Amino acid sequence: MENILLIASSESDSNIYYASGFLAPDSFIYLSTQGKTYLLMSDLEIDRARAQSKVDDVLSYSDYEEKAKRFGAEPKFMDVVSALLKEHSIADIAVPFNFPLEYGDALRALGYTLSIKREPFFSARAIKTVSEVTAIRNAQIAVEKAFDEVIDLLRKSEIKGNQIYWEGVLLTSEFVRQKLHLKMMENGCVAEHTIIACGVDACDPHNVGTGVLRANEPIIFDIFPRSIETRYFADMSRTVVKGTASDPLKKLYDTVLEGQELGISRVRSGANGKEIHEEICALFEKRDYKTGRVDGRMQGFFHGTGHGVGLDIHEHPSISRRDCTLQKGEVVTVEPGLYYPKIGAVRIEDMVLVEENGCRNLTTYPKFLEID
Amino acid sequence: MENILLIASSESDSNIYYASGFLAPDSFIYLSTQGKTYLLMSDLEIDRARAQSKVDDVLSYSDYEEKAKRFGAEPKFMDVVSALLKEHSIADIAVPFNFPLEYGDALRALGYTLSIKREPFFSARAIKTVSEVTAIRNAQIAVEKAFDEVIDLLRKSEIKGNQIYWEGVLLTSEFVRQKLHLKMMENGCVAEHTIIACGVDACDPHNVGTGVLRANEPIIFDIFPRSIETRYFADMSRTVVKGTASDPLKKLYDTVLEGQELGISRVRSGANGKEIHEEICALFEKRDYKTGRVDGRMQGFFHGTGHGVGLDIHEHPSISRRDCTLQKGEVVTVEPGLYYPKIGAVRIEDMVLVEENGCRNLTTYPKFLEID
Repeated sequence: MENILLIASSESDSNIYYASGFLAPDSFIYLSTQGKTYLLMSDLEIDRARAQSKVDDVLSYSDYEEKAKRFGAEPKFMDVVSALLKEHSIADIAVPFNFPLEYGDALRALGYTLSIKREPFFSARAIKTVSEVTAIRNAQIAVEKAFDEVIDLLRKSEIKGNQIYWEGVLLTSEFVRQKLHLKMMENGCVAEHTIIACGVDACDPHNVGTGVLRANEPIIFDIFPRSIETRYFADMSRTVVKGTASDPLKKLYDTVLEGQELGISRVRSGANGKEIHEEICALFEKRDYKTGRVDGRMQGFFHGTGHGVGLDIHEHPSISRRDCTLQKGEVVTVEPGLYYPKIGAVRIEDMVLVEENGCRNLTTYPKFLEID
Repeated sequence: MENILLIASSESDSNIYYASGFLAPDSFIYLSTQGKTYLLMSDLEIDRARAQSKVDDVLSYSDYEEKAKRFGAEPKFMDVVSALLKEHSIADIAVPFNFPLEYGDALRALGYTLSIKREPFFSARAIKTVSEVTAIRNAQIAVEKAFDEVIDLLRKSEIKGNQIYWEGVLLTSEFVRQKLHLKMMENGCVAEHTIIACGVDACDPHNVGTGVLRANEPIIFDIFPRSIETRYFADMSRTVVKGTASDPLKKLYDTVLEGQELGISRVRSGANGKEIHEEICALFEKRDYKTGRVDGRMQGFFHGTGHGVGLDIHEHPSISRRDCTLQKGEVVTVEPGLYYPKIGAVRIEDMVLVEENGCRNLTTYPKFLEID
């Protein structure tokens, strides 16, 4: 059985959070060996770690610092870690790809053998339990509640020229984003950088969008908050037009929707993400939507079809040009998009749970383009 | 001049955000060599990086993947990075302590020499410019506005038994936290895990606090949001009692305040953080407040006095038991605390800007213990 060592802050590293169940802003030490799990914690965090973490034993960094003094007067950080490893007669350690290089070098200099294990570092992390699926679905409920409020607001808004007014307020990305964020926070979710991108802004898939939202142009919403309580994410995209969409935009929307439905129909345990992605690419090509650089700018479908969602917003597996076999219990997005500055931009994204013979859609928000 | 290579997501790694000025959820590649800075970006992010980043040149990962094919049919990630390094005739690279071990190993296997540079990786990051100080102060203004609303709410609340009611609502950590978070979000700041810890909860410095807030007991507020726009943090702690504080708690409060004022009076360019910390420890000892484990639990003053604040909530420098010389332009917290389950817990925290002959307090919120 392998010995696992993690050294990271669980607020920024989901593997150590997943393994320890303990949330802390500063780096701490996690060890798993011979079927038992340990944390080595500072005086500041030790009592809270004992109360809140799910490991078998929470040890005191100060105690091991004392133990390390047997090997030298001024033990360094890695000497203290080593004191713990020696106690368990550990020589070989599995670490994640992003284990800090300085610590890796120091451990090797002390004679340890490190093996780097790629993502998914914990294979179980990709396969969601019932309670993890519930956590993701609950975050998604917060997304849908907040988005529904925005759709309602757009419905009640008036068009003047190419601008949109709600109760006299000129609608901007910033204003609507604030509404969404506050509503999601009321429902226990934190979001930043929610994409509300209109027209040409939306042709850049990760442009968050700024300024006035215009009528009769596509607005992409990509909403991906994290639950404060559970730390699981949700992820949904919708494209809407306040007013009337042009015919080319309607055709673009229908094609993306066709691609998305095709993708969702292919997701099942054992399916290959690369094949799903390539099938959608082929469909778009067949419908005459080309992908490539035009006038120095990417157009068409130039991102992956989907990614895993869980404690990270982007995690294993992927549905993209990389080979990747989907497994039962994974939660993945299916989010093709087409982007043409001269027509507009469309992305439609649902989150689905991979099942034996298909998938279950965790997104229940309807799909429509135009809002009167 | 050193060649700097960073590979990280700028949403979780502040060094690459600081260097590139570009915010992205997935890992990307930053290179600085011979006075010029580069990003190597995926098709998905390249146009946005060209528009938003502050580097000299944004290069296409796809292009370098093609170049790397000259050296092998199926170039791996690090072969693509290497194609960029070769183009600039780079053999030696400086990387941060947390550079991913897998990438470090791969680069060394390709013949590159890596030198690990500890924090502060970019020494300029510790020394705040005028606009960085303004960004921190603006986040602090959001803290003070939101906290003022909570203090007002506590003032208007009624005590029944040992419970606190506001407009008929029984006050809990969760309720007040939600109020604070919504108010800060209205002012452009995102906060999670704001500490609102009452009584024994507060004796664990990082316990966020749960459940009913009780009258006549200390409540520690530790508020540290990040500005969504600038990504700079602020950090403030206050300890208050709704109702009447016991005499031992008042004495504890006065002692922590004395320690904090002592600390602030010592902060100046060239001061040693360790000496400041030890001076506060000595004061607390002199006032007969002991630090150590009692009944298996830490009591007294068992965390550092302060830390740098900027793009990270905890960053260089530190005012703690580690040696560290303060420099003009650094922004640091001064936040001693004393924690005794039988008396209560007090922490008082301001953020100050280190100056030539002293410091400027960026925190303007008053300090008081009791609220009628």
